[in-house]
Amino acid sequence: MTQLTGVEVAKHNTADNCWVIVHGRAYDKYLPKDKHKGPVDMSTVVVEKQEVLPEEQERMKRIEEMPLLEQCYNLLDFEGVAKRVMKKTAWGYYSSAADDEITLRENQNAFQRIWFRPKVLVNVEKVDFSTTMLGTKVDIPFYVTATALGKLGHVEGEVVLTRASAKHNVIQMIPTLASCSFDEIMDAADTDQVQWLQLYVNKDRAITKKIVEHAEKRGCKGLFITVDAPQLGRREKDMRLKFTDEGSNVQRGSGEKTDNSQGAARAISSFIDPALSWEDIPWFKSITSMPIVLKGVQRVEDVLRAVEVGCAGVVLSNHGGRQLDFARSGIEVLAETMPVLKKMGLEKKIEVFVDGGVRRATDIIKALCLGAKGVGIGRPFLYAMSAYGQEGVERAMQLLKEEMEMNMRLIGARGVEELNEGMVDVRGLFNHGVGPVNYLAERVYDPLVNPAQREGVAKAKL
Amino acid sequence: MTQLTGVEVAKHNTADNCWVIVHGRAYDKYLPKDKHKGPVDMSTVVVEKQEVLPEEQERMKRIEEMPLLEQCYNLLDFEGVAKRVMKKTAWGYYSSAADDEITLRENQNAFQRIWFRPKVLVNVEKVDFSTTMLGTKVDIPFYVTATALGKLGHVEGEVVLTRASAKHNVIQMIPTLASCSFDEIMDAADTDQVQWLQLYVNKDRAITKKIVEHAEKRGCKGLFITVDAPQLGRREKDMRLKFTDEGSNVQRGSGEKTDNSQGAARAISSFIDPALSWEDIPWFKSITSMPIVLKGVQRVEDVLRAVEVGCAGVVLSNHGGRQLDFARSGIEVLAETMPVLKKMGLEKKIEVFVDGGVRRATDIIKALCLGAKGVGIGRPFLYAMSAYGQEGVERAMQLLKEEMEMNMRLIGARGVEELNEGMVDVRGLFNHGVGPVNYLAERVYDPLVNPAQREGVAKAKL
Amino acid sequence: MTQLTGVEVAKHNTADNCWVIVHGRAYDKYLPKDKHKGPVDMSTVVVEKQEVLPEEQERMKRIEEMPLLEQCYNLLDFEGVAKRVMKKTAWGYYSSAADDEITLRENQNAFQRIWFRPKVLVNVEKVDFSTTMLGTKVDIPFYVTATALGKLGHVEGEVVLTRASAKHNVIQMIPTLASCSFDEIMDAADTDQVQWLQLYVNKDRAITKKIVEHAEKRGCKGLFITVDAPQLGRREKDMRLKFTDEGSNVQRGSGEKTDNSQGAARAISSFIDPALSWEDIPWFKSITSMPIVLKGVQRVEDVLRAVEVGCAGVVLSNHGGRQLDFARSGIEVLAETMPVLKKMGLEKKIEVFVDGGVRRATDIIKALCLGAKGVGIGRPFLYAMSAYGQEGVERAMQLLKEEMEMNMRLIGARGVEELNEGMVDVRGLFNHGVGPVNYLAERVYDPLVNPAQREGVAKAKL
Amino acid sequence: MTQLTGVEVAKHNTADNCWVIVHGRAYDKYLPKDKHKGPVDMSTVVVEKQEVLPEEQERMKRIEEMPLLEQCYNLLDFEGVAKRVMKKTAWGYYSSAADDEITLRENQNAFQRIWFRPKVLVNVEKVDFSTTMLGTKVDIPFYVTATALGKLGHVEGEVVLTRASAKHNVIQMIPTLASCSFDEIMDAADTDQVQWLQLYVNKDRAITKKIVEHAEKRGCKGLFITVDAPQLGRREKDMRLKFTDEGSNVQRGSGEKTDNSQGAARAISSFIDPALSWEDIPWFKSITSMPIVLKGVQRVEDVLRAVEVGCAGVVLSNHGGRQLDFARSGIEVLAETMPVLKKMGLEKKIEVFVDGGVRRATDIIKALCLGAKGVGIGRPFLYAMSAYGQEGVERAMQLLKEEMEMNMRLIGARGVEELNEGMVDVRGLFNHGVGPVNYLAERVYDPLVNPAQREGVAKAKL
Repeated sequence: MTQLTGVEVAKHNTADNCWVIVHGRAYDKYLPKDKHKGPVDMSTVVVEKQEVLPEEQERMKRIEEMPLLEQCYNLLDFEGVAKRVMKKTAWGYYSSAADDEITLRENQNAFQRIWFRPKVLVNVEKVDFSTTMLGTKVDIPFYVTATALGKLGHVEGEVVLTRASAKHNVIQMIPTLASCSFDEIMDAADTDQVQWLQLYVNKDRAITKKIVEHAEKRGCKGLFITVDAPQLGRREKDMRLKFTDEGSNVQRGSGEKTDNSQGAARAISSFIDPALSWEDIPWFKSITSMPIVLKGVQRVEDVLRAVEVGCAGVVLSNHGGRQLDFARSGIEVLAETMPVLKKMGLEKKIEVFVDGGVRRATDIIKALCLGAKGVGIGRPFLYAMSAYGQEGVERAMQLLKEEMEMNMRLIGARGVEELNEGMVDVRGLFNHGVGPVNYLAERVYDPLVNPAQREGVAKAKL
Repeated sequence: MTQLTGVEVAKHNTADNCWVIVHGRAYDKYLPKDKHKGPVDMSTVVVEKQEVLPEEQERMKRIEEMPLLEQCYNLLDFEGVAKRVMKKTAWGYYSSAADDEITLRENQNAFQRIWFRPKVLVNVEKVDFSTTMLGTKVDIPFYVTATALGKLGHVEGEVVLTRASAKHNVIQMIPTLASCSFDEIMDAADTDQVQWLQLYVNKDRAITKKIVEHAEKRGCKGLFITVDAPQLGRREKDMRLKFTDEGSNVQRGSGEKTDNSQGAARAISSFIDPALSWEDIPWFKSITSMPIVLKGVQRVEDVLRAVEVGCAGVVLSNHGGRQLDFARSGIEVLAETMPVLKKMGLEKKIEVFVDGGVRRATDIIKALCLGAKGVGIGRPFLYAMSAYGQEGVERAMQLLKEEMEMNMRLIGARGVEELNEGMVDVRGLFNHGVGPVNYLAERVYDPLVNPAQREGVAKAKL
Repeated sequence: MTQLTGVEVAKHNTADNCWVIVHGRAYDKYLPKDKHKGPVDMSTVVVEKQEVLPEEQERMKRIEEMPLLEQCYNLLDFEGVAKRVMKKTAWGYYSSAADDEITLRENQNAFQRIWFRPKVLVNVEKVDFSTTMLGTKVDIPFYVTATALGKLGHVEGEVVLTRASAKHNVIQMIPTLASCSFDEIMDAADTDQVQWLQLYVNKDRAITKKIVEHAEKRGCKGLFITVDAPQLGRREKDMRLKFTDEGSNVQRGSGEKTDNSQGAARAISSFIDPALSWEDIPWFKSITSMPIVLKGVQRVEDVLRAVEVGCAGVVLSNHGGRQLDFARSGIEVLAETMPVLKKMGLEKKIEVFVDGGVRRATDIIKALCLGAKGVGIGRPFLYAMSAYGQEGVERAMQLLKEEMEMNMRLIGARGVEELNEGMVDVRGLFNHGVGPVNYLAERVYDPLVNPAQREGVAKAKL
Repeated sequence: MTQLTGVEVAKHNTADNCWVIVHGRAYDKYLPKDKHKGPVDMSTVVVEKQEVLPEEQERMKRIEEMPLLEQCYNLLDFEGVAKRVMKKTAWGYYSSAADDEITLRENQNAFQRIWFRPKVLVNVEKVDFSTTMLGTKVDIPFYVTATALGKLGHVEGEVVLTRASAKHNVIQMIPTLASCSFDEIMDAADTDQVQWLQLYVNKDRAITKKIVEHAEKRGCKGLFITVDAPQLGRREKDMRLKFTDEGSNVQRGSGEKTDNSQGAARAISSFIDPALSWEDIPWFKSITSMPIVLKGVQRVEDVLRAVEVGCAGVVLSNHGGRQLDFARSGIEVLAETMPVLKKMGLEKKIEVFVDGGVRRATDIIKALCLGAKGVGIGRPFLYAMSAYGQEGVERAMQLLKEEMEMNMRLIGARGVEELNEGMVDVRGLFNHGVGPVNYLAERVYDPLVNPAQREGVAKAKL
C-alpha cells in the first residue's frame, strides 16, 4: 500500500467527502468504516494556521499558572490539574464513560466500602512490596494498563509511559489502539523491560495472528485479550464535547442518525470482532506461547471457565466504566470470585488481576488482601502525562510507592504474601443500596419548593 | 347533543359562572363536575389577543436557542430541554407527582440499585431484541404507555406518538384522558399498527361498555384497566404553578376549600369509579375478547389474584409516582413477584409488564432479566414530543434501540430469551434505607451553624 | 397571693436584679428558679415604645408579602412560611431541638424508610378514617399534641388550637407549659369537645395532685404523664438566637456559666421532678380515674412494664427530638414494639400512640398499619397558627383529611381497621447506616482540595 | 552537648544548607533526619521583623471579631472558631489526617450510626458520672489524649491543658511530641493531679528506658505505648498549606523528591522505631511498674493478645485518622471487641479505651454502653485552647459535663455502671455501605450535563 500525502487527504474536506487521519492512517469519515484509505506520510501534512480562540487563550493561561509538579500529592491531584490544562476534547475522550457514568464512579466508590483491620506490633522496619506477575518480578503490584490514543494527552504518546515504567520497574500493557505504533512502543523500552500486549481481536483472524506472533517475537510476555468490548461504548460526555453544529440542520429528519459526532475512536474500532467467543481460545493457545489473560471478566462463572480453558489469568474489569454502565466494579467481582476459587482449590491455578478505580496504595492493598495478584492503573497515568509529561508519570508512580511503603507498615504486613482477607472488612461492599448520584437525573429534576413570597405586594401598597 | 360555539362558552366568564373547554367539550367550572355542557365547535372559539408577557418572551428566546435534536444523546436530555422550553403549566402537569415526589424519584433510583453480572466471550455478532407482547411482535421490548393531555406539550397531541410508534414498530397504549379523541388516534395509525386501550372505568358501566366494544371493533389488541387510581392524585408542583391569586381573598375563611387550583385533569377525571373491584373483572371478560391487563398492581398477592381471575397480564406500576407517594417502584415489585410465580409454576400464565423510571436500555434489560415481558415508557416521549415533535420521539426511540443493541452485546445476550436473573445483582434493591431526598423537608429545615463573627466589632474600635 | 403590677416588675430591670414575666407570673431571673414572685396584673404592664429595627422592618415586609393561605398545600408549607414571618426568637424556640438535631430530622427520615404495599381493586367508594382514642370518637387518627408557649407564635396562644380542634373534631392535649392558663384553654372548648392533660410532674406532689384533680373535674379525658423529660433539653439553635452580648464581658472567667441565655422555658421548667419513677404510677392511679398514658416511652421493655402497671396507653415519642439526641424515632420503636405485644397477646391491653415527624397522611397510615391507635402532631400546627392563625390550623387539618381520604383509597383500605402490617414494607426502617447530615460537623470540616492555580504567575511574566 | 545559639542556626539558611529549630532543638533540614544538631539557647534567636501580610491582617480582624466564649455551646463550635482565627499552617497541622481523610470523618460518622434505647421512669434526681481509669478516680469518663506541638495553637502549649485538666479533675496524657518539655508539663500539674505518658518508642532503647523511668519517678500513673505509628502519616492538607515555591524549580526532575514540604513533625518523628513488636512488651514490663496500655489497637485479635501479654489496657484508636486511611473507627472496633471478651470471660482483665471522633457526651455514653472504660479527646481541646486559651478548654470540659449530666438522666442511668449494651442500637454500625464523601474524587469529577442552550443564536438572528 503506497503512502498517502497530507495534500491528498486534505482534498477530501467537504461535508460529503471527508477524510480524517487517525493513528497515521487516513479514513473516509462516511464510507464503510472498516476500510481505511491507507497510511499517510505525516511529514507531508500541512498544519493549518489558526487564530487562537479565546477559549484556547484561557487554557494557555491556565497552563502557565498550573501548579508545580511538587504540589501534586496524590493521583487525584493530577486529574484535577489535567482537567484544567488539557484540551476539552482530549479531556472528554479520556474522562468519559458509558451512559450515566455510574460504573465509572462506582469503581472508586467500591473501594470506599472496604475498610482495614490492621495488625499492630509487627516489626515492619523492612517492608518489601515487590511481587511477580505472570512470572515477572516487579517493584510494586501494579501495571500500566492499556488506554487508547495517548497522543491526545501528550505529543509523544504512549512511549512516555514506557519510559516511566522502566524507571519504576513496572509492566506496561501496550494498547491496540495506541497513538504510537506497536514497534515504537517496544523500541522505547529498556533492555529487559517487560511489556504485555492488549488485544482487540480482528474479524480477520489472519491479521490477529500476525499481530500476536509479531508481539511474541518482539518479546511481549503476556497476551491480554479484551473480552468486554464486542462493540465500543458510547460516551456521551465525549460526544457532547465533540459536537459542532457546522453542517447540522435542524430541519432535516435526523431521528436515525446518531453517530455523526462519535469521532475517531469509534471509526478505528470497527474492526473488532463481536463474534469472539470461548471457542476461539484454543486457537489463541495454538498460535502463541505467551500466557493468555482474559481482560474484562465480570462474574465468577466466567473466571471458572477461564481456568477450565487454560488461561493464565483474568483481569476483573469493566473497562474503566466505558462499556456497560451498571457493570459492577472489578474489586467487588474479586470479592465474589476468590472465596469460590479457594473453596474449589483453584486459587493457584490462575492469576487474578483487577483494574478500575485504583487511586491510592490502600486500593492496591485492598485488592491484594482479597486475593488479587496485582492491579492495573490507566487514567491516572494519562492525566499525569498530559499535565506534566514523563516527570509527571514518574512522580505519580513514586507517590504510589511511598504510599505503599507507609501503608504496608501501617497495616502490619512486611510483604505482599502477608496480606490476607482477615485484614479487610468487606461487610459493606455488596451493599448496592448506596450508589453514585445520577447527575443527569438530578439536574433535570425540578425540586419541590414552598410557596414563594409574593414580591411586589408590599411595594404595590405604597 | 348539539355543538356549542365558542361564543356561547365565552359568555360564561365570570367568577360565579365560568365554563371551560377541555378536550373539545365545555364544562361548568363550579357545577357538579360529571355533567359537561356539551361538545364545542372549536372553529368558533375566538382566541384572545394577548400581550406577550416577559416570562413568555424569555421562553421564546429559550426556544430559539434550544439545542439541536442531534445534541440529545439520551432520554434525560429531552427532559432537560423540555423543562426549558415548555410552558410552565404544561411542564408542571407532566412532571409533577404525588406529595413529596418520593416515589417519582424512587422509580429511577430503584434501577440504580440493580447491577449487572455480564457474560463475556459470547458470540454477539447478531443480537435480536425484538419480542412479543400479548401476541404482537414488536421491535424492542417497550411500549408507549398512556399519559393524559398530550396537547399540553404539542399542538397535535397523541397522534404524534402514534406516528412515531409506527415508525419504530412499537405498541402505543391509548389513554382515556387523551387530548385527541380515541378515533383520531386510531385513525392516525398505520395498517397493522397495534394499539392498546387504557381504561379508566366509568361509574356508568354502560359508557364503559360502549368504549370497550368500540375499541375492540376498531382493532385494539389489549384492554389495560387502570386499578391504581380510584381517585386521581394531588400533585402539588402542578397546583403551585397553576395558582393565580385573581379572585383570591385572604380575608375569607378558606380552610375548607382546597381545590380551586386543581385544574382540568381533576375535573375530567371525576367520572372514575372508586367502587371498581375484583368482582367487576368477570363482567369485563364477558364484554370483550381483548386480553385484559390490570395496570397499577403493586404487590405479589394481587398478581396471584390476577392470575386466578384469568387476566392476561399485569402492569406493575405506581402510575409514574402520581398517585400514592411511597408506593414502591414497579421494578422492585417485579423482583418480589417473579420468584413467587416461578415457585408456583405460574410464570407462563401471565405477562408481567413494568413501568416507571425507565430511561435507559439498561433499565429495560434489568426488567427483562427479572422476568418482565416488557416495559412501559411515558413521560420521556412526552418530553421529546414537547421539545422536538415527532422527530424528537423518533430519535428518543432510536436512541433506545441503539443503546439496546450495544447493551445486549455487552451483557452477552443474543436475544431476550437469554436474559435471566443470574445476570443481575439485586442484593441492594430492597434496601430502603436509602431514598430520595425530601426536598420540601430539606428546604424548610434550618441547619445549625457555628457562632458567627461579630461583624462591626473591629470597626467599632477604630 | 396578691397580684403584682407591671410597674413593680419593671423596677427590677438591672443586670443584678431582673424580673421577667412568663405565663402571667413574674420570676426573678437570677434567684432560685422554682420560686416565682407572684401573678402579675397584665393590664398594668406598660409596653415600651420601641424603634422598629431594620431586621424587624424586613420581617414586616415579609409578612405583607407572605403567600395566601390557599397557596399552602401541605404541612411543610406552613413551616416554610412560618420560618420567614415569625420572630427569630420564637422560630428558634419552636424549631430547635437537642444537640445536633439528629433525632429531630430522623423523626421525618424514619417515615421515609417505610414504603407501601397497596391493595388494588378494593371498592373504596366510601372510606371512613374516623377512629377512637381512649374511648373518644374522632374524625381522623391524630391529636394535637402538647407544645409549650403558644403565645410566642400567636397572640392568643393555645386557645387557637382548641377552636380549630373543635372544628375538625380532634382531641387537643393541653400542655403544662402553655402560655394560656389551663382554665382558659378548657373554657375555649366546645361542649363535648374532648381534651387531654399533658403533665410535667412537680416535685411537690400536692401541687400535682391539685392539677390532676382539677383537670378531671373540668372534664379532661386522659392524663398524659411526660416521662422523657426529667430535665429539659438544651437546644442550641434557640440559645444561639437568644444570645445578646449586653452585659457580656470577654474578660471574665466564664468557663462555668453556660446558661445565661437559656431563657424562659428553662426557668419555668425547674419544678419538674427528676425523681419520678415507676413507683409513682400507683399513686397516680389512686388520685384519678382518667386513663393514664405514659408520654415519651422509647423501648419495648418499658411498654411491657406500662402494661404491667396498668397504664391505658403509651406515646412512643422522643419529645420532638428536643431531649436526647440519637433517641430513635417513635415510628421505629413502634415497629419494634407491636410484634412483641402481639406475640404476647397484649396488643389489645394498651393503646399505643406515636408522635414525632408526622407531616403527611401517609405518615399516619404507616403508623396505623404498624399498630398505632393514633399519632400526635405538634409543631406543624404551631407553624400554621403562627403564620395564619386559626384559619391556618384549620386548613392544615383539612389538608390532612383530604390526604387521608385519598391515601386510604390508594392503599385500598375502607377503614382504619383494614390497615395492617402487610401493607407496609419496613425492611429498610432499622437500617441506621443512613442518618441525617450532621450540619455542624459538616460545616467545620474543611474539605481537601486539589492544587490551586498559581494566580498571578502569568501576569508576572508580562 | 553545648547549646547552639540562634545566630549559628541562622547562618544555615540556604536551600542547600538549612537548619530549623523544632522543640528547642536544631535540625538540618536535608541531612539524615535522626541526627539533630543540638539544643538551641532560644534567648539568642533573633525574631525577624516582618511586614504584616494582607492575609495575616485579615486573620487579625477575624480575631478581633471572634465570638465571645459564651457563644460556644458545644465542642464543634470551638473548631468552627479555631478554623477562622488560627494561623493556616497551625490549623493545617492540627486538622489534617491521612490520605482522603475518610477515617478522620468516619470517626464521627460511626457514632452517628449508634442510636439510643433510653429507659424512662428511673429516678434520676442524682446522677453521678464519675468513674475510675487505671485506678484513678475522675470526674467524667474522658481523658485529654496526647497531641503533638501544642505551641502551634497557644503560646504556652500543653501546660494550658494541664491546668484545665486539674480544674475539672480529668487525666492528661502527656505527648512525646509536646512543644513543652515533659518536666514543664509535670511541673504545671497540681498536687495529686494524675497524668499518663504517651510514648513513641525510640530505636535506641536506652533513651526509651530513661524516659519511662523518669516518668515513673515523676509520678506518671500509666504508660501508653503508641502502636499504630511505626511511621508517621502523610497529611496532604498540611503539606499543601505548608508548600511554598521558593527554591522550587519546575525544570528540574523532581519525580523522586516528595517530602520537601513535609515539615517539622516528620523530622522530629524519625526516631520512632518501626521494629517495635509484641516481643518488646515483656521488656517494658521489666523496666516499669506503671500499668502498660497499648494505644492504637485496631482489631479484636490484637486486644486478645494484649490480654495475653499482660497489658493493663488498650486504646482502640486510629490515631485520629492521621495514620492509615480506611482504618475503622475505635467505636466500631469496640463493638467488635467487647462481645468476644465477654464470651471469653475476659472483660474484667483489661481496661478498654476508645478515642477518635468524640464530640458530645452522647458519644461518651455510647462508648460506655458498649463496654469502654473511658474515651480520649484530643483535637477539640486543642481548638478550644487555640481560640480561647485555658478558659476555652475549661468551658469545653464544662460543656461536656453539662451534656453528660443531662444525657445520663435522659437515658435513665444514675451511674456509669448502669450503662449497658441494651441501651444502644448498633444494627447500623457495621454498615460500611455509607461512608464519608471523598472530596478529592468528588471535586475532580466532572458531572454530566444536559445539552446547553445555544446562546447567541437568538441574538445572531436580530
